[in-house]
Amino acid sequence: MQTLVVELGDRSYPIYIGPGLLGRADLLRPHIPGRQVLVVSNETVAPLYLEQAEAMLAGLQHGAVILPDGERYKTLEVLNRVFDALLERRFGRNCTLIALGGGVIGDMAGFAAACYQRGVHFIQLPTTLLAQVDSSVGGKTGVNHPLGKNMIGAFYQPRCVLADTDTLNTLPDRELSAGLAEVIKYGLIRDLPFLEWLEAHLEDLLERQPAALVYAIEQSCRNKAEIVVADERESGLRALLNLGHTFGHAIETGMGYGLWLHGEAVAAGIRLAADLSARLGWLQPDELERVVGLLHRARLPVHSPAELDDEEFLKLMAVDKKVQDGRLRLVLLQPLGHGVITEQVEPVLLRATLDACRQPGGAIP
Amino acid sequence: MQTLVVELGDRSYPIYIGPGLLGRADLLRPHIPGRQVLVVSNETVAPLYLEQAEAMLAGLQHGAVILPDGERYKTLEVLNRVFDALLERRFGRNCTLIALGGGVIGDMAGFAAACYQRGVHFIQLPTTLLAQVDSSVGGKTGVNHPLGKNMIGAFYQPRCVLADTDTLNTLPDRELSAGLAEVIKYGLIRDLPFLEWLEAHLEDLLERQPAALVYAIEQSCRNKAEIVVADERESGLRALLNLGHTFGHAIETGMGYGLWLHGEAVAAGIRLAADLSARLGWLQPDELERVVGLLHRARLPVHSPAELDDEEFLKLMAVDKKVQDGRLRLVLLQPLGHGVITEQVEPVLLRATLDACRQPGGAIP
Repeated sequence: MQTLVVELGDRSYPIYIGPGLLGRADLLRPHIPGRQVLVVSNETVAPLYLEQAEAMLAGLQHGAVILPDGERYKTLEVLNRVFDALLERRFGRNCTLIALGGGVIGDMAGFAAACYQRGVHFIQLPTTLLAQVDSSVGGKTGVNHPLGKNMIGAFYQPRCVLADTDTLNTLPDRELSAGLAEVIKYGLIRDLPFLEWLEAHLEDLLERQPAALVYAIEQSCRNKAEIVVADERESGLRALLNLGHTFGHAIETGMGYGLWLHGEAVAAGIRLAADLSARLGWLQPDELERVVGLLHRARLPVHSPAELDDEEFLKLMAVDKKVQDGRLRLVLLQPLGHGVITEQVEPVLLRATLDACRQPGGAIP
Repeated sequence: MQTLVVELGDRSYPIYIGPGLLGRADLLRPHIPGRQVLVVSNETVAPLYLEQAEAMLAGLQHGAVILPDGERYKTLEVLNRVFDALLERRFGRNCTLIALGGGVIGDMAGFAAACYQRGVHFIQLPTTLLAQVDSSVGGKTGVNHPLGKNMIGAFYQPRCVLADTDTLNTLPDRELSAGLAEVIKYGLIRDLPFLEWLEAHLEDLLERQPAALVYAIEQSCRNKAEIVVADERESGLRALLNLGHTFGHAIETGMGYGLWLHGEAVAAGIRLAADLSARLGWLQPDELERVVGLLHRARLPVHSPAELDDEEFLKLMAVDKKVQDGRLRLVLLQPLGHGVITEQVEPVLLRATLDACRQPGGAIP
């Protein structure tokens, strides 16, 4: 087992990474201050792991609320079911919410914990690669709005994270790949040696070799934690983590939440960002090829959907949180292994990238 | 004009108190960092003051969202209209929300500001006495849930507060009285000289004499600010501000939001707390009489509603946020002018107070 501490002063917390952690009540229990615990999970994960999770809570007053599975249920309305469950049990201000599931469950349970009685305790048990490498670090929580992804939320830190790599054995291939998009992102924006390790070990990860998974998760969490510690509220540096996300959010919103997985949309978004970086001369052609090649090997999409034309795409990007007072901010690469934040992209170049990276669609012979 | 600064480090902010402040763009504008402003108001206040408020925003990209008036609309569902309005205008992370109205509008606009894009700027223009002396200090924001008041929310500080005492000229008598309940509370829990001033000047306040209003608002805000600065997140001392509120929230929830005004329910709650304090020997009989007398002179209720029997009342109190791991915490008086927080109340005494302070109901001749 590896332990990584996210250093945020009095909100510092440990991330435990390794196999068999869902059985480790000795790790979990010291982080539960009160006697009331609500586990928030979904219809897919609960049948697999809820019993194990609740076994760690023996002797406490605990219960579970099971939400429908999927990004399209990440709404204020569904969030209200968590508040219902808390209030029906009359849980007080010293209760703990435990997220058992992927990124959607983590975001919703974390936001519910941030808001319930203006803040109760929160713990994450992430069961997907995406949640283990991304949403469990950094304290971003929230729900979607029909007009934009993650538009309603809070910064709220968990008291601890238990990332049990055994849970990845039940993860569908498609979701494993989606998680790898964020893993690759860390290499691209700030860690060339890790990117090279990924190029050498990608197949080990696809085969779910335990040691490779623990290493990749640990390096991802370390990279993210270093950024978050430097800029918790995303006033500057933290925006680097959005590589591929402004494009990706537009794809997710435009296609309807849930059709594309978040990681898939981010993968296509990373390709678009790399393509644009290359058009600016910031990335060399062989570096662009390495990016596309790695995403491709990870079985991730490298094209935006045929359904989104330039106008629609640009409109969707304009509502993204990364927009400041009307100016579009993008994360690009300059060079490989180093992300940069820019507001200086010529619309003509942006359109060229959108045109070049779109999935050829339709029934043209 | 009086200026009071709430000292919260990098979240410190000024409260300006006086007549004519809705015309003072010079006070407001330095606190708006971006160019996008959404005013949140309600159907009652907007026709009276929205034009004045928007006149201060000339040259900015501004708009307004008008919510229905009343505590029963303080819900997640109605809150979503604020998010709709922000997203339809594609407002970004540097936008400002301005609350123009009473406590409900302040709580909702503040919570929307806390959550929109995980936090945007927030300013309060309170137009009721209650909002000027209570909700504009301390950063408590949120909405109600059918099972409990203010159960969903955030601690979120405004960038400034403009309390224009001229707006109190259009306030219904009933709401002026409701605001006085919180004013009296400050005297009771920590400021005996202010309580004595109130006993001497209550009629001046009911007659809305400007100098008396400015003084009472300033003393109330100062008392609240001193408590909030010492305990922003309500881990201890701040709970004193809940004098009358555990009883009061039970009344509000039990009667259905909106039937009793918040201040009215708090007034009845203060009387119950004083009665219980007297039963414990903490308050002398003549002190209890002074409390009841002052509330009565302020035209506030001093009985709990006949509709709520002991069982219902105790059940409603059990879900209050002040409950910690199942133990009921109450704020009582020991002696007059000094609030204390206790978890040591005998159920038999509590029931005696509930029985003694209930409005005699029914058609008994």
